Amino acid sequence: MHHTAPRLATRAQLIQPFYAVDIYRQALVLAEKGRTILMCVGEPDFHTPERVVRAGMDAALRGETHYTQPLGIPPLRRALSQHYVNRYGVDVDAERIVVTVGASGALTLAFMAFAEPGDAIMMADPAYPSNRAVLTGCGATAQLIPVGAETRYQLTAEMVDREWNDRTRGVMIASPSNPTGTSIDPGELAAIHQVVRARGGVLVVDEIYHGLTYGHQPPSAASLGDDVFVVNSFSKYYCMTGWRLGWLVVPPWALEAISRMQAHFYICPAAPSQWAGVAALEPESTAIYEVQRAEMQRRRDYLIPALAEMGLQVPCEPDGAFYVYADITAHSRDSWGFAMGLLQATGVAVTPGKDFGDHRANEFIRMSYTSSMPQLEEGLEAMRRHVAR
Amino acid sequence: MHHTAPRLATRAQLIQPFYAVDIYRQALVLAEKGRTILMCVGEPDFHTPERVVRAGMDAALRGETHYTQPLGIPPLRRALSQHYVNRYGVDVDAERIVVTVGASGALTLAFMAFAEPGDAIMMADPAYPSNRAVLTGCGATAQLIPVGAETRYQLTAEMVDREWNDRTRGVMIASPSNPTGTSIDPGELAAIHQVVRARGGVLVVDEIYHGLTYGHQPPSAASLGDDVFVVNSFSKYYCMTGWRLGWLVVPPWALEAISRMQAHFYICPAAPSQWAGVAALEPESTAIYEVQRAEMQRRRDYLIPALAEMGLQVPCEPDGAFYVYADITAHSRDSWGFAMGLLQATGVAVTPGKDFGDHRANEFIRMSYTSSMPQLEEGLEAMRRHVAR
Repeated sequence: MHHTAPRLATRAQLIQPFYAVDIYRQALVLAEKGRTILMCVGEPDFHTPERVVRAGMDAALRGETHYTQPLGIPPLRRALSQHYVNRYGVDVDAERIVVTVGASGALTLAFMAFAEPGDAIMMADPAYPSNRAVLTGCGATAQLIPVGAETRYQLTAEMVDREWNDRTRGVMIASPSNPTGTSIDPGELAAIHQVVRARGGVLVVDEIYHGLTYGHQPPSAASLGDDVFVVNSFSKYYCMTGWRLGWLVVPPWALEAISRMQAHFYICPAAPSQWAGVAALEPESTAIYEVQRAEMQRRRDYLIPALAEMGLQVPCEPDGAFYVYADITAHSRDSWGFAMGLLQATGVAVTPGKDFGDHRANEFIRMSYTSSMPQLEEGLEAMRRHVAR
Repeated sequence: MHHTAPRLATRAQLIQPFYAVDIYRQALVLAEKGRTILMCVGEPDFHTPERVVRAGMDAALRGETHYTQPLGIPPLRRALSQHYVNRYGVDVDAERIVVTVGASGALTLAFMAFAEPGDAIMMADPAYPSNRAVLTGCGATAQLIPVGAETRYQLTAEMVDREWNDRTRGVMIASPSNPTGTSIDPGELAAIHQVVRARGGVLVVDEIYHGLTYGHQPPSAASLGDDVFVVNSFSKYYCMTGWRLGWLVVPPWALEAISRMQAHFYICPAAPSQWAGVAALEPESTAIYEVQRAEMQRRRDYLIPALAEMGLQVPCEPDGAFYVYADITAHSRDSWGFAMGLLQATGVAVTPGKDFGDHRANEFIRMSYTSSMPQLEEGLEAMRRHVAR
């Protein structure tokens, strides 16, 4: 008897590949044969500091290997609440802070809480690809608004008001942005908040690159009011990608529902990760992280002029994260082909624009400066030879 | 200006509380004032073995603190593939084994892969509550089939065939079952597989309590064919609940889609957890786990007659997991009130039947034997006095 394979659900068909992950996989295969330089990844090259690792594992050795409360261990929720006081001067009740399975878990819980099938959530194009995928998982869609260097690749209040339509249910802002590393002006974000509020919509702000900002220290969207979902993470500034630990500041109206969903969908975040997270927030860890932040800034300041010299312009200087979004049109109008050719010829892996949306995606690549200065220099030299051919 | 709170999405309204988690929370509050005995939890009381913790820690200290490949680290996928050979004598290609964020993550990926909004997935009533919640998250529903002791609280092929309707998209079996601890007959499972296959549906089998079986060693549903989704976990037998580590055996037709969804929804499972998982599968760990399994069996053998003596019958002897599903009708026909009264009066926390479905839910409680023998004896003595009042 012949049986045909069952059909994938629509969402499972629609969700696009995470191209940066695909390229990373190809780069790993190449790495077995020769030299590769990964400028495609979304994580710091720094390992988690030893004191943070030891805090997680000491907790596990003393028996913290069981489920925790679904919303997270109280010491971590309290420490995060205190973090908002210390860093931003804003009171965020620990009860509104939900510890999550990475920012991915935070994003999923936020969208699952309010996005009905058919709803649209407005966001910039380019933006982080998983925003779209999680919305597809909800049967909703991303309402992509093309943005450019003139608005620092961020939405404006005027755009949000103009583009709002019957299906628009909310707005998502990421600042600093992935892939562009550019932050939104705090006044503009406050104005967007007012527009969203007046429309009866929901504002979600992704602050996972907070901490990794250069020359400025932006306020948190949590200071705008308790109606904002704020997504954050231990992955980037705290160098804890592999621990899958993030958090979500939740508006009071969604808290009970998110508590139910967290218990069913995740049970809880990993216990050793949560105890490591407590240590990551301590001043002794901050001292380590600030040294690493300075190193990231040094790399950025090297990379941008070096790229410009080979005709790869970065139209808006990034003030955060560890990405530059570089215009390749001096060499190609096919960023996918450009990235693939570069990888095959030189072992330098970069991410083509199409991972981040549609708008001028063929004209841009994202490069991560998450390699050491000598590696960056070697990678740039290989690129220089490649584009000069 | 007054602003009304935005509306929760339908799914967020529909998902029921995880009552066992609520009761656990109440028990923790009580524990601050006096003695409590937790017979409501879904995890072993044994901590993760030290050698497993140390393997996770050593990996993190050597820098395994970064994202892993989305589907999991190759050594763990290979070790799991070998586990199927060693334990079940069945070949499961490591490529089809996806490491997940707990069994919760496995369940979510499986249902997201094939359950369209409006679809129904058939399962026993009573069953694990999060099955229903994850389906609600997909816009789908659980098609609950009342079962009793006469079928060991499991579906039969006859039931599946009889109850199949136009909305039925698949069948989920959990064996051993939570809340009843009873396993399905392997021949019956094979017959269900045939019915589901003939209907063009999808079979999902939850084997998270495999390893914790008493007096028998069931085959894996992976041996039925590569068209079965098999959900498994390091949480129960391996005593790793807090590490959030599970796995999913994926049919070939769904593998590429699940790879995309894993990357977007989770990025990857926690890296230290994955390295700990490798150690959990080693023979030196098995030796520890087998001692703990014997202790679980000893507790079960104590508990069932002790409950019967106070009029709490367990209609079908559990042959796995660490639960008994006890009939309380000699004392009450309101299991919620019974559980709450018991908790308040004695500090003994049990889970009322309504966490697991509708069918005779008021007549049953689930009790976990995840406390030491002295604690179980103390708890049972307190229950004895309580029901005799």
